[in-house]
Amino acid sequence: MTIEKPIYLQKIKQDNMSVILQQIWEHEGISRVELVTLTKLTSGTVTNLTQELIQLGLIREFATSSSAIGRKRVKLKYNTDQFMIIGIDISRTSYELILTDLAGQVINSVEGNTIGIHQPEKILDLIAPLIQNMITYASSKGMPVIGLGVSIPGPIDRKSGQLLTPPNFPGWENFPITSTLEKRFGLRVFIEDDARASALAERWYGLGRNVQNSLFITMGMGIGGGVISRGELVEGANGLYGQVGHITLIPNGLLCACGNRGCWETVGSIPGILRRWSVGDSIDDFFHAVHQEDPHAVQCLKDTLSDLESALTTLFNTYDPEIIVLGGRLYPYLAMYMDDIRSHVKDRIYSFVRDRLRIENATFGSSQNAKGAVALVFERLLTAPLQMLTTDNAKEK
Amino acid sequence: MTIEKPIYLQKIKQDNMSVILQQIWEHEGISRVELVTLTKLTSGTVTNLTQELIQLGLIREFATSSSAIGRKRVKLKYNTDQFMIIGIDISRTSYELILTDLAGQVINSVEGNTIGIHQPEKILDLIAPLIQNMITYASSKGMPVIGLGVSIPGPIDRKSGQLLTPPNFPGWENFPITSTLEKRFGLRVFIEDDARASALAERWYGLGRNVQNSLFITMGMGIGGGVISRGELVEGANGLYGQVGHITLIPNGLLCACGNRGCWETVGSIPGILRRWSVGDSIDDFFHAVHQEDPHAVQCLKDTLSDLESALTTLFNTYDPEIIVLGGRLYPYLAMYMDDIRSHVKDRIYSFVRDRLRIENATFGSSQNAKGAVALVFERLLTAPLQMLTTDNAKEK
Repeated sequence: MTIEKPIYLQKIKQDNMSVILQQIWEHEGISRVELVTLTKLTSGTVTNLTQELIQLGLIREFATSSSAIGRKRVKLKYNTDQFMIIGIDISRTSYELILTDLAGQVINSVEGNTIGIHQPEKILDLIAPLIQNMITYASSKGMPVIGLGVSIPGPIDRKSGQLLTPPNFPGWENFPITSTLEKRFGLRVFIEDDARASALAERWYGLGRNVQNSLFITMGMGIGGGVISRGELVEGANGLYGQVGHITLIPNGLLCACGNRGCWETVGSIPGILRRWSVGDSIDDFFHAVHQEDPHAVQCLKDTLSDLESALTTLFNTYDPEIIVLGGRLYPYLAMYMDDIRSHVKDRIYSFVRDRLRIENATFGSSQNAKGAVALVFERLLTAPLQMLTTDNAKEK
Repeated sequence: MTIEKPIYLQKIKQDNMSVILQQIWEHEGISRVELVTLTKLTSGTVTNLTQELIQLGLIREFATSSSAIGRKRVKLKYNTDQFMIIGIDISRTSYELILTDLAGQVINSVEGNTIGIHQPEKILDLIAPLIQNMITYASSKGMPVIGLGVSIPGPIDRKSGQLLTPPNFPGWENFPITSTLEKRFGLRVFIEDDARASALAERWYGLGRNVQNSLFITMGMGIGGGVISRGELVEGANGLYGQVGHITLIPNGLLCACGNRGCWETVGSIPGILRRWSVGDSIDDFFHAVHQEDPHAVQCLKDTLSDLESALTTLFNTYDPEIIVLGGRLYPYLAMYMDDIRSHVKDRIYSFVRDRLRIENATFGSSQNAKGAVALVFERLLTAPLQMLTTDNAKEK
C-alpha cells in the first residue's frame, strides 16, 4: 500500500508549484512573503518549492528597492531566457511557425502558404525542416525547446491528439498529428483548435492575464470562439464548447456546413459577407466599395454590423465575460466601426453591467494562432512543471 | 510563521474529504480500496478521513456480498438519516418549503401563494413559522438541520447574499435575505437564482449525478438557465452566466426587459406565447385552442416550437452539454412534442454528436426549485464538510 504514496505527494507538490507559478505570472514579480499570503501555503513550503523552481531554471530572484525606505527586497520572477517554445499554426491555406521565450517573445518566425497541398504528410514534410532549424537554433543558445504547440482548424479530439471532421480541410480527418510530431522530434506536442488557441494567447500573453472570464471570437473564413471560465479554457462534452459561429441569427436562414440553418457564420464570415454582397469575390473589393459609398455595399455592411451586435449581445448573455476579444482576418476591416459596435452592444445588455463589459481587439494580429500554440505549451508548463521539465516523467503526459 | 500551518492542513484535509464524499455520492456505495484507486489518495489517508466522516455521522459502512464467492465486503455510503436540509423556493407569486434528508427525499413540505404581498419582510413573516416548525420537527427526530437553501428570482449577488435587480419582483432589490434568515434561525443560509438552483437539483439528485456537462433550461413566466461545466455550476463575471432566455432569436424583435431586442424570452415564455396568440390570457386557454385545432393557435404553437428548436441548437453549439434538461411551468404543455423537438434539434447539430446529445424533462416537476435549494446546501456539505458540520467554524463561510 505504500506504492502510491510518492505519486500522491508528487501530485500535491506539483499542484502547489502550479499555484505558485500562476501567482508569479499574474503579479510579474512577487516576494515569498506575498506568495505565502496569496497561496495560503506555509512559508516552509513556499521556500522549498520556490527553491526547486529556481533550480529547475524556471524562476529567479531579483532585487527591488522599496521606494519608502530604500531597503532592498527580494522578489521572484520568470526566467524567460532558459527555455524556448515553438508555436505552429496550420491553417487551410498557410502555416506560421514561431520560436519564443517563456514570455511569448518571438525570437524567430517563418511563414508560408500551402495552397494546392492537401495531404497532411506533405505539409509536415514542408514544415519539418523549419521546425528542426528552430530546435537547433534554440539548442545552440543553450535554451532547450520544452514543447511544440499546434493550432489547427477544429474540431479536434484532445484525447487521441487527432483532428475530427474539420470542414474544408481535406485529408486531415483522423490524422494523428500529435503522435506524428512527437515521434519526429522527440518533444511534447499539444494541439488545440485555432479559435481556442487564440483565446489562450490572450489568457496568458494578452488581455486576459488577470481576467478569469473571457470570450475570444475569431472572424475570418469561418467564425470560431474560445471561452475562458474561472481562468481555464472550457472544452465541453465533445470539444464543441464555444462554437459561437453556429448560433442561429437568421431564422430559417441558409443551411450551414454544421447542419444548422441561419448560423452567424453564414452571414458574418468573409464568405457570408461576400455572398450577401454578391458583387465581387474579395473582401478588399467589398470594403473598397463601402468606402466609395456604394449604397448596396453600405447596406450589406450595415446588416453585417447589426448581425455582429446581435451575436455579441447573445454571447454576452450566455457567457457573462469580463472581456470579449475580437480577432481574425476580418477584424482589421471592422476595427474602425468598433466604437459604434461597443455602444450598441452596451445598450442591449443588462444596465448594471454596461460599464463593466470590455470589448477589445485581439493583441497579436495575424500571429494570434501561432502565439496561442505557444500559450498552450506555456499553460502546460504552469500546470505540470515537474512533468514538463524532468525527463523521468517524459512519457506520462 | 507557524500560525498558518493548521489552516493549510485543514484545507488539504477538507479538500480530500470532499473528493471522497463526491466519489461515494457518485457510486452510491463504494469500498475503501476503490476509493484509493479513484482518488489517488493513500490508503492511510482514505482510512483516516473515512473514519472521521463516519464519526461526523455523514457516511456509514454497510456489508455487501460478492456474488461470485459469497464473501462479505464492506462498502461506504451516505448516512441519509442523520441530518436534514430545508429548501425554500420563493417565486413572484408563491412559496414552497421542503424538509429533506441528505439524499433529497422529501420528509415534509408546505406551499402557498403570496399574491398581493410585495414586501420581503412580510413574505418572510409568513414563512418563518413554517421554517421554525420544520426545524423543530427535525430536531425532535434527532436529525439537525444543517442549512437553509433559498431559490429566488435572480440576478443575485452571491458575495453579499442580496438580490440585485430582479425584474417584476418589487421590494426585493438589495434585500439582504441571507443575513436576515441567518440571524432569524442561526443556521447557514445559501441563495441561488431559481434557474441555477434547478440545475443543481439535477446535478446532485437528478439526471446529472454522473454528468460533468449539462444545461438546465426553465421555461415559465421567463426563461432562465443554469450551466454545469466540469461538474460545477458556472457563475460568470457578474452572475449572469446562462441567461439563455436572452439570446437573440428574432432580429429587431420586441424590446425585452433586459435591454436586448428579440430575446427568446419575448416569444418563448408564457407571456411571449400569449402575446403572439393575442386571443386569450391564459396558457391553458391557448393549449385548449391548439387541441381544438384552431388554425391561428396551431400556427402560434408551430412558431413557438420552431423558436425552441432554434434556441436549443444555438445553446448546444455554445455550451456543448451531454444533456439538456427542460423544466418550468411551461414544460408540461410541451412534453407531448418532445420527440419532434429532439429529432429536429438533432438534425441541426454536428453529425458526429447527434447520437450523444440527450434532451430530457426535469426530474422534480413543480418542486424543482425547492429541490434545487436543498441541493445548494448539499453541495456545500460535500465541498466543505468540516465547515458545515463543526461548530467552531460556524462563522467562516
